[in-house]
Amino acid sequence: MLLFFATGASADPLPSWNDTAAKARVISFVEAVTDPASEMYVTPAARIATFDNDGTLWAEQPLYFQLFYAVDTVARMAKDDPSILTTDARKAAAKGDVQAVMAGGNAALLDVLALSHAGQSVEDFQAGVAMWLETARHPTTGLRYDQMVYQPMLELLRYLRDEDFDTYIVSGGGIHFMRVFAEEAYGIPPEHVIGSSIVTSYDVTGATPVIQKEAELFFNDDKEGKPLAIDRHIGRRPIMAGGNSDGDFQMLEWTTAGEGARLGLYVHHTDANREWAYDRDGHIGVLKRGLDEAEDRGWLVIDMAKDWAKIFPVAPQ
Amino acid sequence: MLLFFATGASADPLPSWNDTAAKARVISFVEAVTDPASEMYVTPAARIATFDNDGTLWAEQPLYFQLFYAVDTVARMAKDDPSILTTDARKAAAKGDVQAVMAGGNAALLDVLALSHAGQSVEDFQAGVAMWLETARHPTTGLRYDQMVYQPMLELLRYLRDEDFDTYIVSGGGIHFMRVFAEEAYGIPPEHVIGSSIVTSYDVTGATPVIQKEAELFFNDDKEGKPLAIDRHIGRRPIMAGGNSDGDFQMLEWTTAGEGARLGLYVHHTDANREWAYDRDGHIGVLKRGLDEAEDRGWLVIDMAKDWAKIFPVAPQ
Repeated sequence: MLLFFATGASADPLPSWNDTAAKARVISFVEAVTDPASEMYVTPAARIATFDNDGTLWAEQPLYFQLFYAVDTVARMAKDDPSILTTDARKAAAKGDVQAVMAGGNAALLDVLALSHAGQSVEDFQAGVAMWLETARHPTTGLRYDQMVYQPMLELLRYLRDEDFDTYIVSGGGIHFMRVFAEEAYGIPPEHVIGSSIVTSYDVTGATPVIQKEAELFFNDDKEGKPLAIDRHIGRRPIMAGGNSDGDFQMLEWTTAGEGARLGLYVHHTDANREWAYDRDGHIGVLKRGLDEAEDRGWLVIDMAKDWAKIFPVAPQ
Repeated sequence: MLLFFATGASADPLPSWNDTAAKARVISFVEAVTDPASEMYVTPAARIATFDNDGTLWAEQPLYFQLFYAVDTVARMAKDDPSILTTDARKAAAKGDVQAVMAGGNAALLDVLALSHAGQSVEDFQAGVAMWLETARHPTTGLRYDQMVYQPMLELLRYLRDEDFDTYIVSGGGIHFMRVFAEEAYGIPPEHVIGSSIVTSYDVTGATPVIQKEAELFFNDDKEGKPLAIDRHIGRRPIMAGGNSDGDFQMLEWTTAGEGARLGLYVHHTDANREWAYDRDGHIGVLKRGLDEAEDRGWLVIDMAKDWAKIFPVAPQ
């Protein structure tokens, strides 16, 4: 009997996926690249899978969660020291008025981002993010932000790792921000989290050296930046990539342009009841070119409403 | 009998190291951090070890090997197309006159580096480096450049991996350059090779997308750059770091500033007979501050002449 459980060949690796063509295609891809007798076989070392984070592994509405962190953090800082409220953007953030911050355009956003992300050590920043995750709740679901991860994608990540894939995040989100929760939320360790980053500096003026975060963009890990970051951090082309927006287009393009078996997939937000429905319009997670070209390019488009039996691990409150 | 070989507790993990205090200290560190009963125990996930490449894992005299690649490549390119010989630096390189290139200073060096490293795809560049490694021979030893790796360090890398360490290269050398040989020479896969890099761009003008290398520095992975690159690529502080020059000082400093068991080590080039002897003077691998401060900081200084029974895996010709 132990043997039966140990082999587990009949266990469903993706129980939160409905039995649709999407699920069948994912499983068939994984089985083909891991079967030594298959023409599509890929050695374990080359089984690299890269995934966007916002909108692909966790939700991104009504705003990227990292922006909620930024606004909440400016509000917290202003309580301790109101003298920091020198700009309209900071004042709006201190009131929790996210819309007013956004209305201020890029300059307002950068002001709030710089104040909440720079001028501190990586260690202090990450301690602050961890503290924020403990207390902050999503405005419409009431869930912790790190509970708003997609159960079907958690199963996919685990399935891939069980089949000797290395799973990576390649996201426009901040690299230090995501590393705070990626290991616990997704089983993805810090060294497999690739993201946007600001300039850092090495500071030895204190008792022990620290790495400081500076208010200057170092690398924008979006669109063309994604294949470039994959090349720089991993140095191999993935055989599988997943995203949900046109910001992931080049990552899927780069991945599927390689020879042999490849799988590009888009998570399509079609479920206004259980999550959100959006694609071509708006300012977050715009998916237009990807939808237009996915079929011709052979990319799998996952219809969240039809293909997923469950969205979040726990029900919204 | 099988059991005896399988446990292998009595096998020497570092057979090319003499039985000196240096070897004892390395082994005692590894045993302490891997023994669950030890106060210094470190979980496998946190067993990160980072090593410089030039002068630490392979030789770097009379010049960084990557500069030999650059000069040889300009010479090869000039044979195909002499019209590229528009500068004194290129003309010197085409004659194989490395000293004349170096005499031209930084501008001459950058000219030769740009011509040999940029204006091509990553794929083409790496194919060129692989071809060069096959044919090029070191000017004094007659060995292939990738044969001039240090046997004691190969054993150390393997020993660490056998003890569930992740081994990384963190080098001022080019990230794309090192990845061509790091896996075969050291058992270090591309995703564990961190180095200096030039700007890249994503080019979709051809039939399939390519990543192009541009003639502009992106990141200099030396001195303060090493801890910053470790933070960006790995996101955890190593518990062990090895280097051979003051360019590695900050990496050792950052590594050993962490809490718990840490080991910083310097390879000191003391063996003019079997390799080269150099430290405080010259333009390659200068080790001055490191030598002055190693003892106070508790860093191990490996004396190549005394501590290593063997230098290269094969004898110079």
